[in-house]
Amino acid sequence: MTKFEKPRGTRDFLPEEMAVRRKLENRFREIVKRWGYGEIMTPVFESLDLFKAKSGEGILGEIYYFEDKGERELALRPELTAPTMRAFVNEMQSFTKPIRLFYFENCFRYERPQKGRFREFWQFGTEIIGSDKPAADAESIALAMNLIKSAGIKGYLSIGNLAVVRHVLNKITDESEVKDKIMRLIDKKEFESLDNYLEEIGADFNSVSDLKRLISISGNDAKEVITNAKSVVGDLPELDSFKNMIELLEAYGISEYRVDFGIARGLDYYTGVVFEIYADGLGAQKQICGGGSYKLIPLFGGGDVASIGFGIGFDRIMEIFTEKQDKDTTVNVISMPETYKEGIRLALVLRHYVCTTADIMNRNFGAQLKYANSSNADYVLIVGEKEIEKEIYSLKDMKTGEQKELTEYELIQFFAEDD
Amino acid sequence: MTKFEKPRGTRDFLPEEMAVRRKLENRFREIVKRWGYGEIMTPVFESLDLFKAKSGEGILGEIYYFEDKGERELALRPELTAPTMRAFVNEMQSFTKPIRLFYFENCFRYERPQKGRFREFWQFGTEIIGSDKPAADAESIALAMNLIKSAGIKGYLSIGNLAVVRHVLNKITDESEVKDKIMRLIDKKEFESLDNYLEEIGADFNSVSDLKRLISISGNDAKEVITNAKSVVGDLPELDSFKNMIELLEAYGISEYRVDFGIARGLDYYTGVVFEIYADGLGAQKQICGGGSYKLIPLFGGGDVASIGFGIGFDRIMEIFTEKQDKDTTVNVISMPETYKEGIRLALVLRHYVCTTADIMNRNFGAQLKYANSSNADYVLIVGEKEIEKEIYSLKDMKTGEQKELTEYELIQFFAEDD
Repeated sequence: MTKFEKPRGTRDFLPEEMAVRRKLENRFREIVKRWGYGEIMTPVFESLDLFKAKSGEGILGEIYYFEDKGERELALRPELTAPTMRAFVNEMQSFTKPIRLFYFENCFRYERPQKGRFREFWQFGTEIIGSDKPAADAESIALAMNLIKSAGIKGYLSIGNLAVVRHVLNKITDESEVKDKIMRLIDKKEFESLDNYLEEIGADFNSVSDLKRLISISGNDAKEVITNAKSVVGDLPELDSFKNMIELLEAYGISEYRVDFGIARGLDYYTGVVFEIYADGLGAQKQICGGGSYKLIPLFGGGDVASIGFGIGFDRIMEIFTEKQDKDTTVNVISMPETYKEGIRLALVLRHYVCTTADIMNRNFGAQLKYANSSNADYVLIVGEKEIEKEIYSLKDMKTGEQKELTEYELIQFFAEDD
Repeated sequence: MTKFEKPRGTRDFLPEEMAVRRKLENRFREIVKRWGYGEIMTPVFESLDLFKAKSGEGILGEIYYFEDKGERELALRPELTAPTMRAFVNEMQSFTKPIRLFYFENCFRYERPQKGRFREFWQFGTEIIGSDKPAADAESIALAMNLIKSAGIKGYLSIGNLAVVRHVLNKITDESEVKDKIMRLIDKKEFESLDNYLEEIGADFNSVSDLKRLISISGNDAKEVITNAKSVVGDLPELDSFKNMIELLEAYGISEYRVDFGIARGLDYYTGVVFEIYADGLGAQKQICGGGSYKLIPLFGGGDVASIGFGIGFDRIMEIFTEKQDKDTTVNVISMPETYKEGIRLALVLRHYVCTTADIMNRNFGAQLKYANSSNADYVLIVGEKEIEKEIYSLKDMKTGEQKELTEYELIQFFAEDD
């Protein structure tokens, strides 16, 4: 135990790990940009009220919140959808729709840290604002699947539809709190508690029976699953849209998925299509992405605008991402006290083409060479008095041991090709 | 006033602004990597004690801090040097020296928001750990100047030396609190208060006179300035190192600077060279970078290891950074209900080469074309039934109005060249 430790549940990322994280982050960025999404960044903290409005008082037990010196109640963001929608209401209502946004930021939750669960964690996500069409749902799901695939990870997609589930739920009760509680029990798959709760509220027998039948319907054959759902809820237009959405997924090349009316996502603001993506991790399959269509904008004081989005748990992805850091080619300039300044000058030139370091420890020639070895340099450039006089420098390949005598121009050419 | 606002002193960054910020961030990243620096990332919050240890109790008035549910006192980081040194002590003590690190993160301070001063702000900085040599100081200053230059900004460099100032200070008092107070008054250039305070503590007349003479020494001619300093403090070895460091700056191509023994940086942990870089902003010259050599590692329970680093105020740089977003070439795929799936397929193909969007609003042909216009698309790709039948698609350049009939292969070739 040293004098100061990082706070419980947080991490330091050192250069090697950080380079791998940036590598995947940048790959994700490139993809979402190619799909036409623009980046948004919101503050690390927001009014506590914003998250209470979205998720209810229950959120207080799970998040970091505090009062600032001006007695404002602030919360470290537990997720990025609410801040993005708040920013839309404040600043983007006049933008041409659809608005395609993405973000990659840290979020915070106060919970017991455990393997793969951290108090500071990263979310890569997107939101489409302004479309409630199946085409928007399909694009969002296809983009999520594309990102996961780009990480070399096989994603298992499950798709549900809360509009259909709510249709049955509305027959059981009008009270939104009761609905929320039922949805939460479905989400956690606590079916015994669900039975008890439905009995407790004296729910109508037929409606309960419909609900239980509906949420047990799942399978890989979309047509069959939707036909089964129809036998419970009748010919809902939401089921036709859902079927249409799934057909579009096929156009996106997504033919493997599971339709599951038991997906509840635990959050009461989803309105239609919801989806979850799982991956084979260490041990059991774990959820790496969740999303769906929702309406938060009216709740935040904006117009009646629909959205759909997803969040990818970046840290979970990193657990199973197997690529390594792309090591940049590195040159160590080795000089003597008398030639140090010339070494600095050459290092400045080479840095236009290749990662270059010079000694800053006043080490002698031998110690500089030893450092080049231990720091895994690819090349050393020897800048001695003889070299300066001839204007020809010795470049040694540290792997092959091969040594070349090059002019400054040839040096530049050598590394510019690599660049 | 809408229902929810971003917290006072914070900002939302929308896609256009965000793209420009990322552009400069990525340029900075490329440069520091070429200089051999690796990225480190630490948590957004740390133990409050860490910042108190570094900066004293006075910091409490300026930062966000709070108790978490486990009754730990945490602070949102006001800067990134202390967290980096904490991470070094915890995890990097065995690494080969020198360790070159960089970071680009948000920091927080609780102060009255004003033009260009925000409660959440971004710092781009570096730290070299393990060298107290003039060569390390010179590299750090040269790198800071290079970064600023890469942003197209002329940086005005001022260099001081606290080892020399402390030499005189030690004659006035042994008490570190008194020294800190004097340094803070020098830093703020509150010379009247300084006079009063020195009188109050009954400081020795000759030493006070030396101090006042020393901190008034500045100029562009390093040799002259150092000779003047010698006339006050005598032949200190620190002055020789300082002279040596400044000579190295010339090797880095930095010939314009001001040496100023009145720079105090207000922080008591700096040990030797300190520097500040200013830029012409809107109105007066503003500081955009500050740095110096320091020793925090022993204070945090680590060994006697020296460091030097700097932080660039990224938001201040952004105020005067004049480049615009690099607009990516964009294609809007325009299709009809019957050809939508083929449009999706082609969009997937084109996204390997160019930013491509398809309609997700169920808009008709005319409305899609109108959207392509209003969203400033560079090209539209028309995918109608006729086109699918012939397997030849119409690509319209929205600027010139020129229309080309291309096969899928030709389409790919067309955009792959652009890529």
